[in-house]
Amino acid sequence: MNFNFSERMQSIRASEIRELLKLTEKPDIISFAGGLPAPELFPLKEIEEIASKVIIKQGQGALQYSTTEGYNLLRQIICEQRIKPGATKPTPDNILITSGSQQALDFTGKLFINKGDVIICESPSYLGAINAFKAYEPTFIEVPMDEDGIIIEKLEEILEKYPKAKFIYTIPDYQNPSGITLAVERRKKLVSLAEKYHIPIIEDSPYSELALEGEVYPSIKSFDKNGYVIQLGTFSKTFCPGFRIGWIYAEEEVLQKYILIKQGADLQCSTLDQRIVAHYMEKYCLDTHINKIIEVYKKRRNIMIDSMIKFFPKDIKFTHSKGGLFTWVELKEHMNSAELLKEALEVNVAFVPGASFFPNGGKHNYFRLNYSNMSEDKIAEGIERLGNLLKKYY
Amino acid sequence: MNFNFSERMQSIRASEIRELLKLTEKPDIISFAGGLPAPELFPLKEIEEIASKVIIKQGQGALQYSTTEGYNLLRQIICEQRIKPGATKPTPDNILITSGSQQALDFTGKLFINKGDVIICESPSYLGAINAFKAYEPTFIEVPMDEDGIIIEKLEEILEKYPKAKFIYTIPDYQNPSGITLAVERRKKLVSLAEKYHIPIIEDSPYSELALEGEVYPSIKSFDKNGYVIQLGTFSKTFCPGFRIGWIYAEEEVLQKYILIKQGADLQCSTLDQRIVAHYMEKYCLDTHINKIIEVYKKRRNIMIDSMIKFFPKDIKFTHSKGGLFTWVELKEHMNSAELLKEALEVNVAFVPGASFFPNGGKHNYFRLNYSNMSEDKIAEGIERLGNLLKKYY
Repeated sequence: MNFNFSERMQSIRASEIRELLKLTEKPDIISFAGGLPAPELFPLKEIEEIASKVIIKQGQGALQYSTTEGYNLLRQIICEQRIKPGATKPTPDNILITSGSQQALDFTGKLFINKGDVIICESPSYLGAINAFKAYEPTFIEVPMDEDGIIIEKLEEILEKYPKAKFIYTIPDYQNPSGITLAVERRKKLVSLAEKYHIPIIEDSPYSELALEGEVYPSIKSFDKNGYVIQLGTFSKTFCPGFRIGWIYAEEEVLQKYILIKQGADLQCSTLDQRIVAHYMEKYCLDTHINKIIEVYKKRRNIMIDSMIKFFPKDIKFTHSKGGLFTWVELKEHMNSAELLKEALEVNVAFVPGASFFPNGGKHNYFRLNYSNMSEDKIAEGIERLGNLLKKYY
Repeated sequence: MNFNFSERMQSIRASEIRELLKLTEKPDIISFAGGLPAPELFPLKEIEEIASKVIIKQGQGALQYSTTEGYNLLRQIICEQRIKPGATKPTPDNILITSGSQQALDFTGKLFINKGDVIICESPSYLGAINAFKAYEPTFIEVPMDEDGIIIEKLEEILEKYPKAKFIYTIPDYQNPSGITLAVERRKKLVSLAEKYHIPIIEDSPYSELALEGEVYPSIKSFDKNGYVIQLGTFSKTFCPGFRIGWIYAEEEVLQKYILIKQGADLQCSTLDQRIVAHYMEKYCLDTHINKIIEVYKKRRNIMIDSMIKFFPKDIKFTHSKGGLFTWVELKEHMNSAELLKEALEVNVAFVPGASFFPNGGKHNYFRLNYSNMSEDKIAEGIERLGNLLKKYY
């Protein structure tokens, strides 16, 4: 048995950190590695009540095949409740339900990328997006960021050099991994560059509703009058990731292509889960639930930041994220965070080394910390242990 | 807005019959078009009871992210309950949970096909598989079938001509669309050809547990000592398709590659749905449920076949399928079943024209009839109407 696999399998390789991350699943570990929401906040009683009703009262539909586009009520509620007001108003015909945002990323690769095509992303960018796109063998061009996100002048230089780039991929709010938010003026500028170069912007928005402090910025999509922005949303961070329910918001003409891709890829998302999520949002206020999440995450972030200030060597830079789930740590240039992880695991602390967030590799002196999934006590304890390790190098 | 899509989007086009099939959704239509199981058989009370327990007692896990491979208990139960005994015994490490079989087909395309590669399939073959594979731009070579499935001599000729073909795709049991079952001796022969040519066999088995009469044959996989067969299974036809739960059974080395693809494609299947399906099968006997399905489908098939004998012109050939959901009708060579569908819709009867089941096109004188989703009365009535239409041409 020695099969001849496709060439793309050279790009879809096991991450070198995957084995290391398996060690983070030991029960006594303080893990800042995942991007998991806090499960103790899931509204189990309400979900159970809704699920029971959906199965008993509409089970013949809820457990049967359904349309590829998704459950109509869910698409309607997304339009009404989850998409912020903007230049154009979405209808259900602009929404495709996907298996989390991850599937929307895979479909975006499938829709746009021929082998060797240039795609533009932030540096660093989301690991899961990089992996999804890699399957279609693009050339990644990374745009540098400052504390206000993508540096527009650098992006313009790149667009001039690569006018045939297929899309710009960005996470404008509380970016994964860096925690950085894109400034409002830059959002507007991004849309006008998209129009100038006829290049779509993929706006990935899993954290936009998790503002822990400060002003909430309008989405890039809200400035888009002419359909250049394809926005991705998900319930994984604001409700429960186990349902695997996300969505793509795009112009109908583009959405139709995504629907055809979905049909070939897996026909449709779970009919049952779509209906549970829709009927939960019909009966309960998701915003109220999100406010509870924000309250808890804010405390956890504060403890993490305070502990980093207290226990980390003074020279270490990290983002004071204003929302989302992550902070991003920069070590001295010659340091390697994957090596540091090995040491950290010895004292039962875990994080994700930063190299995998740079699609073209080469930067080893960063790591990502998640604060949403550990109790305040554990966060303080874990950061202290990490601080003690780091002091050896500073 | 005029985006530059990938070349593969030329292959992923809206099916010409898709618009026509939308008409089949009118409430008063007698539809033999879908491949839907009978929803009145879904065990709603039992599923509701299991779902409630899963959410209340293990909700923090059941609604959280989980592993890409799938819920371990589910993989274990699939090994113990759903895979027939064979040359090798599977463990959970041989099983990846997928979003129905459709996702397994997409992943198979991704794993094996470079643009232009030859893949081998039955003629006709399953429409959904053809669509999934087309996204990877292969060259399809169709193997003719007789009433015992793939004609082995023809397959050997093809393998000699295309020794670098990437895989052989087959639905050996009650094939969709033809209803044909592959003879046992040919199953064995297929495995030895796979070994001789170092080519994997993709054994798609959605209907293997729906034997309505006659002997149940061992799977192709059961003859496979050396890992040449990749078997696809699903609960969509034996339980409820709305969960979107299927699986891939392959050698660990191959399965690891599928897992990496799944990770980039959508991270994992719904944690909740996986647990509901697993705990249902832990508490209840799925075989007992399948027996109920078989009883109902058998009556429906009998009514359909009897009505076809009674109302169809004598010269029309159709398969007397021994299981699954479909029968396949052959018209005179010059006839076009898509034209016939237009006439049939006028008398409120629907079916799927056969051309889409031939990846290289060209055969218009077939159509597929489904008998699982309509009551006996409606089946008799619909076939009579169809027979009256057909009499004009014979």
